[in-house]
Amino acid sequence: MIPAKSLAVSGHRFAARYAIAGPHDAARGRAEGIAMEQTIEFPVDLVADDDIRRHVVGRVEAVDAVGPELSVVRISYAAETFAGELPQFLNVLLGNCSLYPGVRLVGLDLPPEVLRQFRGPRFGIAGLRRLLAAEGRPILASALKPMGLSADDMAAIAATMAEGGIDIVKDDHGLANQPFAPWEERVRACAASVREANRRLGTRTLYMPSLNGPAPEFAERARIARDAGAGGLLVLPGLTGLDSMRALADDDAIGLPIMGHPAFLGAYVLSEAHGIEHGVLFGTLYRLAGADMTVYPNYGGRFSFSRAACRSIADACRAPLGAVAPILPTPGGGMTLARLPELDAFYGPDTALLVGGDLQRGDLLENARRMRAAIEPGSGPAAGAPGGAAA
Amino acid sequence: MIPAKSLAVSGHRFAARYAIAGPHDAARGRAEGIAMEQTIEFPVDLVADDDIRRHVVGRVEAVDAVGPELSVVRISYAAETFAGELPQFLNVLLGNCSLYPGVRLVGLDLPPEVLRQFRGPRFGIAGLRRLLAAEGRPILASALKPMGLSADDMAAIAATMAEGGIDIVKDDHGLANQPFAPWEERVRACAASVREANRRLGTRTLYMPSLNGPAPEFAERARIARDAGAGGLLVLPGLTGLDSMRALADDDAIGLPIMGHPAFLGAYVLSEAHGIEHGVLFGTLYRLAGADMTVYPNYGGRFSFSRAACRSIADACRAPLGAVAPILPTPGGGMTLARLPELDAFYGPDTALLVGGDLQRGDLLENARRMRAAIEPGSGPAAGAPGGAAA
Repeated sequence: MIPAKSLAVSGHRFAARYAIAGPHDAARGRAEGIAMEQTIEFPVDLVADDDIRRHVVGRVEAVDAVGPELSVVRISYAAETFAGELPQFLNVLLGNCSLYPGVRLVGLDLPPEVLRQFRGPRFGIAGLRRLLAAEGRPILASALKPMGLSADDMAAIAATMAEGGIDIVKDDHGLANQPFAPWEERVRACAASVREANRRLGTRTLYMPSLNGPAPEFAERARIARDAGAGGLLVLPGLTGLDSMRALADDDAIGLPIMGHPAFLGAYVLSEAHGIEHGVLFGTLYRLAGADMTVYPNYGGRFSFSRAACRSIADACRAPLGAVAPILPTPGGGMTLARLPELDAFYGPDTALLVGGDLQRGDLLENARRMRAAIEPGSGPAAGAPGGAAA
Repeated sequence: MIPAKSLAVSGHRFAARYAIAGPHDAARGRAEGIAMEQTIEFPVDLVADDDIRRHVVGRVEAVDAVGPELSVVRISYAAETFAGELPQFLNVLLGNCSLYPGVRLVGLDLPPEVLRQFRGPRFGIAGLRRLLAAEGRPILASALKPMGLSADDMAAIAATMAEGGIDIVKDDHGLANQPFAPWEERVRACAASVREANRRLGTRTLYMPSLNGPAPEFAERARIARDAGAGGLLVLPGLTGLDSMRALADDDAIGLPIMGHPAFLGAYVLSEAHGIEHGVLFGTLYRLAGADMTVYPNYGGRFSFSRAACRSIADACRAPLGAVAPILPTPGGGMTLARLPELDAFYGPDTALLVGGDLQRGDLLENARRMRAAIEPGSGPAAGAPGGAAA
């Protein structure tokens, strides 16, 4: 039996909301189990009526029936349980209870004292607009592909995209260090070609290479990319960890905007019974972890995210979150000219549209120009694209 | 349209098997979609009949109906698509298609040329047995808890566990850098107390602190822990990334055994329609990423992994995998004395049993001694524990 302790705690608490599948009358017991599991992971009856029980064990604040066989519970945790470190913050939210069947993290309630421990995105929407000199319209992004092209081929595509008015040219998320276009060679070639295009044309296109490499090289690749003239960085937190993105965003010696990609994370969102709600993961958590843009599959594309899921992500990107800046939802997939009016109505201008491989169907330069013309403020739904199917 | 290229490829290919939910007659089309998505992520009709199409695009090798509304497809990928880097290996296996509904990674076929690119665990089962001088019996592990105790309290518990015959004493997975027992203070105190117990008693207990801290401090904390006398390291790849564990295992300057923990990864395994099969994730992938032991929730505990899931993990830990050493399945939860005969029959001796908080129910030293006595070779099911409920 553990003796009572006198702990110095701030009293600041944050809360997580979990959807619990199953009978309502079991929800409170399951919530108590989570509150224990996520903190002391220890039989509660072995803890004396002391400060550990009072402050360290999670506290079930509410249990609400929200549907047949579905409850939402709210559990608060002392700020000291994570002590300012993002990996442990995530661990408190969903570490072991990710392994409980029928438990899904659906919401966060973060007081100012906890939010203050996250610097968040360095640029956010306003900062990206300043970098790009792009006001009042969506941002246009595209990807260098397909894997198998040489670094010089990629660089040529990047320059054409810049000329066509694409604001952000990123590495395809599957480009790593393949022999077809080794990482450093590709990054130097593409950064140089985009810089030269910007100089020649007066554009402000940002090239964002991927940092999906070995863990010990993460920070060094960021430095190489910055020194080569990259205008931002693509991060895949599902593979390198959310805290690698957070550390990159916090690094004053890098100081570049970050695009977060959802690769490898689908299992968190696809089942309604487990994982993390779309907006919490790709919105709030990506934002706390420093992403300035968050890529996700748009509704109506080949991935089948729902409109509600996309709405949740977009809302979480832009909702008040203390001093943590709002960020750009960056839907990808199915971005045709014909869909722009619909996407504009759904997302509004504070959005980045990620146009994929179809931009290379026919003439890349012409396709990019038409897409860019169509998103300029004041352009009508049919602007520049009578046929509407080119891009 | 992309011009044809002449690519230098080795011809070595590895394959992934995916379970695809839905009608059998749609499975081949979905497999072709995955083969594209995981490699070029580009409309296949835009790729000329060239080396990219021939070598870079994934290849659908088999499509098998395995049940009503369920198929298993086998897709091979060129070794060059990941080029020896673990994050990109995972990205090829399940990066974007993790976001496809009804797609689950259920198997890997890795040829010697690909396996050779992973060093895997530094110790494995044989190496851990040598370190612990423990042959022919399960390894006994326990955790320092609950959160809220001071570093000195934790150190005292660690020493008692060593005295009681616990082979491996790890930080509870929720211990990070909390003010109750700050990381470095706790690690130094516990490493010293276990070292002193070993010296005094002739035991060989290993203390394994957790490395669940900020990404930029990962390698440095490993070095501090090693210098302080830690006997191994606890890694939570769901929070720090699998490649951080791989890099740690590969680091000759650290050279300690690694225990991999499943925190935050439940969503990958809990739904049969998504994510990754239990044995592939917690067995094969953890092993490729250098874990010597893989913790997972045992069947019959509070997490509801099935017996089949536990069997799959245990089998994947020990199956032939090129030169990659077999590792210790480390089931946790519900490890009572009464269950030892059943667990022994299910898992056999090449197993680590992770005994949790219940070891502190009553007298910790006595409980540990009885548990240890019960797993000694030749001890009968009832050895040392007539009541069978103490631990």
